[in-house]
Amino acid sequence: MFAVTILGNNSALPMYNRHPTAQVVYVHDQLFLVDCGEGTQMQMTLYKIRRSKINHIFISHLHGDHYFGLVGLLSSYGLNGRTEDLWIYAPAPLRQILTLQFEAANVILPYPLHFIPLEGEQTIYEDKRVTISCFEVSHRIPCWGFLFREKKKPLKLLSEKLQEYAIPSSFYKQLKEGEDYITREGAVIKNEWVTEAPLPPLSYAYCADTAYMESIAEKLKGVTLLYHETTYLANAEAKAASRAHSTTIQAATVALKANAKRLLIGHFSSRYEVLDEFLNETRPVFENTSLAIEGVTYLVR
Amino acid sequence: MFAVTILGNNSALPMYNRHPTAQVVYVHDQLFLVDCGEGTQMQMTLYKIRRSKINHIFISHLHGDHYFGLVGLLSSYGLNGRTEDLWIYAPAPLRQILTLQFEAANVILPYPLHFIPLEGEQTIYEDKRVTISCFEVSHRIPCWGFLFREKKKPLKLLSEKLQEYAIPSSFYKQLKEGEDYITREGAVIKNEWVTEAPLPPLSYAYCADTAYMESIAEKLKGVTLLYHETTYLANAEAKAASRAHSTTIQAATVALKANAKRLLIGHFSSRYEVLDEFLNETRPVFENTSLAIEGVTYLVR
Repeated sequence: MFAVTILGNNSALPMYNRHPTAQVVYVHDQLFLVDCGEGTQMQMTLYKIRRSKINHIFISHLHGDHYFGLVGLLSSYGLNGRTEDLWIYAPAPLRQILTLQFEAANVILPYPLHFIPLEGEQTIYEDKRVTISCFEVSHRIPCWGFLFREKKKPLKLLSEKLQEYAIPSSFYKQLKEGEDYITREGAVIKNEWVTEAPLPPLSYAYCADTAYMESIAEKLKGVTLLYHETTYLANAEAKAASRAHSTTIQAATVALKANAKRLLIGHFSSRYEVLDEFLNETRPVFENTSLAIEGVTYLVR
Repeated sequence: MFAVTILGNNSALPMYNRHPTAQVVYVHDQLFLVDCGEGTQMQMTLYKIRRSKINHIFISHLHGDHYFGLVGLLSSYGLNGRTEDLWIYAPAPLRQILTLQFEAANVILPYPLHFIPLEGEQTIYEDKRVTISCFEVSHRIPCWGFLFREKKKPLKLLSEKLQEYAIPSSFYKQLKEGEDYITREGAVIKNEWVTEAPLPPLSYAYCADTAYMESIAEKLKGVTLLYHETTYLANAEAKAASRAHSTTIQAATVALKANAKRLLIGHFSSRYEVLDEFLNETRPVFENTSLAIEGVTYLVR
């Protein structure tokens, strides 16, 4: 499963039982936490997130609504006896903030905590399935988005053809990587006779808090699922600009220009109790848009 | 009204929808916040606490479950446009923790924030109604309790007697302070003829996180309402001692020795889902005991 579960969809002031930003990204059996507003650990309990499966946490920027729940989560991991390594990818000043708080509590975490400061645009995580990179967006303080991109998938084997050519299963791995098979008799079975192209790699982009920025669309060309903030409705464009946030129309425009497959919008201002208008404004520009609703999981596909 | 509303009654790991420690103490029209675990601002919304009425916040110690919600609350006050002064009484290292977080967010609060570091045992707040003092308790890191004590109340006027002696209402204030009244003719109307003793001053003691400490009972002799932690049931006494926490029996013993009028127990360990046993163990030692339940207000009387 490649998907994202929303734990918080509100902007800075928690209201209407909407919470500050946090998301869990599933890439098959791995869980990644993206931002961690106050109360994230309680939201994890509410929505039955298997927090022990999280080994990597990404913090976009140091406005409190994106990280004030982190030190509580890290402390709870300690109290729960976690021993597995945990990696934090975050703006550099967070390291000292965490250190001071653990020192003040005289806490020594029972697990290794690794801190990787975000810098520029680069790959920050990679395994056999996925590459995660950070990219700078435009906010009032240094702020990064994160792009989760599946790696190129192996070729798909055509089981009928495998039988037809009597290829031993011990060679399947090489076939998936594009090799031809050569029989004992020396005959060449061409790879393309027994395989077909894999599904294209999928991708999820989290654009954090940002003013409208056309270059984001360039960078994310062809992204499968694009999360873009819509703190404000269209008529608050000046306010959005002054706070380095985005409106519905701006988010939809980024999705359109990026040729995204689907748009997910969130980080709603507390001035809006009812959210319908966010869809009403976004969909005429970019039809395949969904509201980020807490507790809901959105597949990347 | 002199009362306390519980916002969080659990120990460090939030569970069973119980939250980390926070309490609001009402002294007539003033609200005081005591400790501020993660999610306190959400609990305030849930229980309709008029947070703008809070001007003084007391933090007992720097274990996260007693203060991780503070920076979020302070930030939200800023976003809500608060301009009134706010005072924080807390262990000294908290100042830098807060400062770093506001610096990282490039936030300048729109209200004056005063930081008063706790030291030893002393009066830290006083107005015409109440005196608040801090006192050291015994925990794994420096930790303070807080004692809210009403000031000596004015004498009560006996209205029948006032009429009988025809004392002008302009003199009532002096009567309440104990003065005799002298008529135009020079006759002395003795104060005790027209007044009676006021109700005794009431008091609320918050004992924070602490190991069993007999000296607390000495210090709090005659307290009206005593909040004492009971992280553990009696059979976990060794565990309690090793973590510098208290059991049911220990809390009840402190209340008994202090000759408290009523005991309120909380800070329950996450190992206990059902809390009945806390009362079953406490009441045989100290009958007038209540569980601290979130959202419930307990009168000090």
